[in-house]
Amino acid sequence: MGKVVLAGIGATPIGEHWEKSLRDLMVEAALKALEDAGVEKNVVEAIFVGNMSSGYLQGQEHIGSLLATWLGIPGVAACKVEAACASGGAAFHNAFTAVKSGVYDCALALGVEKMTDAPTEYVTSALIMADDQEYTAFAGFSFVALNALVYKAYMEKYGARQEDIALFAVHDHEHAVHNPLAQYRRAVTLDAVLSSPLVADPIHLLECAPTGDGAAAALICSEEKARELGLTPEVEVAASTLATDVLSLHDRDDLTTLQATVRAAKKAYRMAGIGPEDVDIVELHDAFTILGVIHLEDLGFAKKGEGWKLVKEGEIEPGGKIPANLMGGLKARGHPVGATGLYEIYDVATQLLGRAGKNQVEGAEIGLAQNVGGVGGTVAVTILRRMR
Amino acid sequence: MGKVVLAGIGATPIGEHWEKSLRDLMVEAALKALEDAGVEKNVVEAIFVGNMSSGYLQGQEHIGSLLATWLGIPGVAACKVEAACASGGAAFHNAFTAVKSGVYDCALALGVEKMTDAPTEYVTSALIMADDQEYTAFAGFSFVALNALVYKAYMEKYGARQEDIALFAVHDHEHAVHNPLAQYRRAVTLDAVLSSPLVADPIHLLECAPTGDGAAAALICSEEKARELGLTPEVEVAASTLATDVLSLHDRDDLTTLQATVRAAKKAYRMAGIGPEDVDIVELHDAFTILGVIHLEDLGFAKKGEGWKLVKEGEIEPGGKIPANLMGGLKARGHPVGATGLYEIYDVATQLLGRAGKNQVEGAEIGLAQNVGGVGGTVAVTILRRMR
Repeated sequence: MGKVVLAGIGATPIGEHWEKSLRDLMVEAALKALEDAGVEKNVVEAIFVGNMSSGYLQGQEHIGSLLATWLGIPGVAACKVEAACASGGAAFHNAFTAVKSGVYDCALALGVEKMTDAPTEYVTSALIMADDQEYTAFAGFSFVALNALVYKAYMEKYGARQEDIALFAVHDHEHAVHNPLAQYRRAVTLDAVLSSPLVADPIHLLECAPTGDGAAAALICSEEKARELGLTPEVEVAASTLATDVLSLHDRDDLTTLQATVRAAKKAYRMAGIGPEDVDIVELHDAFTILGVIHLEDLGFAKKGEGWKLVKEGEIEPGGKIPANLMGGLKARGHPVGATGLYEIYDVATQLLGRAGKNQVEGAEIGLAQNVGGVGGTVAVTILRRMR
Repeated sequence: MGKVVLAGIGATPIGEHWEKSLRDLMVEAALKALEDAGVEKNVVEAIFVGNMSSGYLQGQEHIGSLLATWLGIPGVAACKVEAACASGGAAFHNAFTAVKSGVYDCALALGVEKMTDAPTEYVTSALIMADDQEYTAFAGFSFVALNALVYKAYMEKYGARQEDIALFAVHDHEHAVHNPLAQYRRAVTLDAVLSSPLVADPIHLLECAPTGDGAAAALICSEEKARELGLTPEVEVAASTLATDVLSLHDRDDLTTLQATVRAAKKAYRMAGIGPEDVDIVELHDAFTILGVIHLEDLGFAKKGEGWKLVKEGEIEPGGKIPANLMGGLKARGHPVGATGLYEIYDVATQLLGRAGKNQVEGAEIGLAQNVGGVGGTVAVTILRRMR
């Protein structure tokens, strides 16, 4: 089986899209990806839509067929793929195996979520559906509260300080300034982060990814098909993996590591034939500052308990050891849940294609996107590589 | 790429499972499939859960990871796949391409839905999410009402009579009597069907598939892996396809045919290298009697407008031209929405394996399962074949 290549990417700005519906966002991102690839929509043979809560928040399921219809290509294969906040990464993974299987030559992976025009309590309810609700929701946990437990356990175990961990948010905002699609294009100070209201002790408001609306898409093809279409693919999908862990924190031995990340990364490095030392840039699923730190460790970029040092010492900046979340991350680019996995792939590709403007890491050849569902119940890892 | 084979099947009885939760049903079906295959659970590398409404009805998403956890194999890849009532078939399709790709050797496709312990108005709301809710739900259509339009259009166009079409329900109930997993194991007369209350003119209550709870699963592997495990696979997955049509009836030229069926079937026949004349038994998605009739036509078993004749003339009985829905179909076996696609595959396999008891079609070698989402917005077709 030949290579699977990235033919095009597209995304809407993330924000409060009061005048665009779920279908508008999907179609906009899809058309942008097709335009980026320079192909007609009829090359798409299958659509995989990553989304978590369209049923609960919009009263709409069956959005694979909805997108095929409104994109004007009814007939193609289509379905929705859900794995909580890892829905986008899981959709991409299904698109990847679909093309890899030879059953399809070109597939569109798209993530979408529309959260801001639902009442806040609905969004809170929707998010805790990512965990085992019969245990955690019924016990009164919100999704933020679960992550607060992880944060406390990490500080306790490793003696890390919140002012170091919270720097992750400062980092994200600094880079989002230069990302035209980012939800919050403004810098924040560490003081501002630490003096923002507590949501769930110790997590401050400005340590949390915001809710937002958006859609992002990637068109992938077999290399053979891409060349048949006259394309000159620049980026290949070197690996796409998916792994789980026990769904809830109360069943885990250690709250300070996400085993699903470790597993998905191990498989991905093997599939791509590389190690963490070969990765030039990374997009981490930092739904909360503490997660960004933990992901650096679980992906093999830092020893356990030392991820925060990379942040503090500037090693996740361009020019550092492992430049991370250079388009703003979940915190400042935004986190429209089911779309996030595709935004991460979009951001990694943006770097590899040299389109990142002031955030560009020169010569980036290999990038990794990590997308987390729940508190690590599912993790998707994608490795993109520039083609020689 | 070698063959993909069916290693094992498992399913719960369909009914009102007041004492079993969503996870109980999933685990029960999965364990039965593993037991049927005669393998340990650790052979499963990926899980694809077909489900439509767990978020809306149970307040639970992320059920791929939930199942991996409760089945005791956290670590595997897992996600939920949704395509309305075709969720089960779509999940199976994703499992098929996953194995076909070589990324996984063994995958578990499982469908589940739990509907009876939600208030009726919730179930009605959940089901119309299968159509374009901004157009149809907002205009006051229930899901039954949409199918009533199809029914009327068919009778008008072809001069067919309701007493002939409604015979499909009588047929289903007759065979469900001998299916230990069926929801309604009792025969009904045509009089009873036609004198049952009107739900949406002209559809009578006994022409509608019931709501119910259930889960069904299929373990599929590459043939090579199956032999490595010491198995002697008897059935191969000769084809698995997925196709869409414009989501809503108001955008279609002809209400009396589901183009998604025609497309998915055409691809499936080509993939399997057969034609409709080679199919020995079929499971049709007869959510309403009229659909059973239309499916016979769209799959190529009857001319347009003449599907009802096959029913009337006994041609869908064992010994007839195309024995159909011999385990009770959606009407009497039951229709737990996201699980139905897997129940159909279970029922087809039951026949090919010679386990259908009094419903057995002797010598059945090729069987087809057709699973419909919405009113044909998505259709999945699976062809299973006995291995020589």
